[in-house]
Amino acid sequence: MDKDMIRFVRNDEFARFIGLQLVTVEPGYAVVRMEVKPHHLNGVGSVQGGAIFTLADYAFAAACNSGGNATLGINANISYFRIPKGRVLTAEAREVSTTNRLCTYSVDVFDEDNVLIARLTATGYIKRDKS
Amino acid sequence: MDKDMIRFVRNDEFARFIGLQLVTVEPGYAVVRMEVKPHHLNGVGSVQGGAIFTLADYAFAAACNSGGNATLGINANISYFRIPKGRVLTAEAREVSTTNRLCTYSVDVFDEDNVLIARLTATGYIKRDKS
Amino acid sequence: MDKDMIRFVRNDEFARFIGLQLVTVEPGYAVVRMEVKPHHLNGVGSVQGGAIFTLADYAFAAACNSGGNATLGINANISYFRIPKGRVLTAEAREVSTTNRLCTYSVDVFDEDNVLIARLTATGYIKRDKS
Amino acid sequence: MDKDMIRFVRNDEFARFIGLQLVTVEPGYAVVRMEVKPHHLNGVGSVQGGAIFTLADYAFAAACNSGGNATLGINANISYFRIPKGRVLTAEAREVSTTNRLCTYSVDVFDEDNVLIARLTATGYIKRDKS
Repeated sequence: MDKDMIRFVRNDEFARFIGLQLVTVEPGYAVVRMEVKPHHLNGVGSVQGGAIFTLADYAFAAACNSGGNATLGINANISYFRIPKGRVLTAEAREVSTTNRLCTYSVDVFDEDNVLIARLTATGYIKRDKS
Repeated sequence: MDKDMIRFVRNDEFARFIGLQLVTVEPGYAVVRMEVKPHHLNGVGSVQGGAIFTLADYAFAAACNSGGNATLGINANISYFRIPKGRVLTAEAREVSTTNRLCTYSVDVFDEDNVLIARLTATGYIKRDKS
Repeated sequence: MDKDMIRFVRNDEFARFIGLQLVTVEPGYAVVRMEVKPHHLNGVGSVQGGAIFTLADYAFAAACNSGGNATLGINANISYFRIPKGRVLTAEAREVSTTNRLCTYSVDVFDEDNVLIARLTATGYIKRDKS
Repeated sequence: MDKDMIRFVRNDEFARFIGLQLVTVEPGYAVVRMEVKPHHLNGVGSVQGGAIFTLADYAFAAACNSGGNATLGINANISYFRIPKGRVLTAEAREVSTTNRLCTYSVDVFDEDNVLIARLTATGYIKRDKS
């Protein structure tokens, strides 16, 4: 991954604050892991939807920024399938399409039993600045 | 708002952890506020997309659960329009449609200058259990 | 509306083929109407989801292209609320946000009883070519 | 595929009207084909977004209704990646998740060069009537 992009992704304070761990980052691919803690839960004791979204979205950001161009998220669509079980969630982001200005990624989120609990489809705008 | 639902919404640990404040909750309507702190920022110093999503999604959860039936989020679609300015974000959730089993809400997110910076459209599945 | 854009919108063969009628077109706003015919129905006799989508998407295209720049649809999210009643559907598109390169519109679809039966949120990429 | 469901899918008047051909239908999987005709084009001579959506959505409907329960589309999110080339479009629908009441499918749309030009993610509500 491009060095500036590493910094960009690693310096994400919100990802650090909620406890996301980058496992793998390659151009067009990333895996992020989250150990479920009490602060991730909603009022009925499940992992909160925003925490699941943030996990998946961070995998998208890592994967699409790893190519060396800053990418701005413009749209994200998440479907929740099941209440996750266990103490670890894993998000795996894969490139679906990249054109000159736009990229789309699909991110699958699995629980500790390796059951698919959510899928995010995210679209980014690629900034191709001279700098 | 129904008492059990108040508990459900107020006991959201993730919302508390990242610093969301319920301002208004009525059946079909809610306003949530977030003071921007360093832990909300991404690697380029803007509010992270996951924090904006969580703010909007919590307004949706508060509004749709306030009627007394537990609602499960099944799908959410967010569009980001602008980098927010200032130190406060506000999310305002409004009911778009509610049928027997499904509800859809639209949530607008404004920055401190009252500029629309994102919109979430979220669909929930209404659990109508006897319990 | 810019003359070239009028041509672009009016020359839409698919819109003509399925029977869409432009009622109003202004920069950032459009209304499109569809008289329900047997060829719009699905296997259970309701208006097919693709026909509802096309109606709403055409209102989006008319509204966002009326400013004089060609806009390419990049993402569209539709929620269906109710089975429409009556013999006419109307789609009303409103601008939500326009920045340099991207625009987002919200399109409400009403049946003959003026009941909201679907909502489309669509994002376009604005081509700002010299030509 | 269940006989009633065959009828339901095959009697889709809108799919017939615009020229969609069911190629494969199995529980959880379907392929639909569309030969591009002048009536599918938009004002700049490309296949109209509504035609692409309808093709993909019909593959979703065929795949998710083939199990024997009627499914109602509640949400669909489409991303367009490229202007299709050639005279044939093919949509391939795959099940992502099915629970008691909800199912989600991913549908890829390819052009004649086998390039991925769009992806639809669709969610349906499964009617489990006694009848």
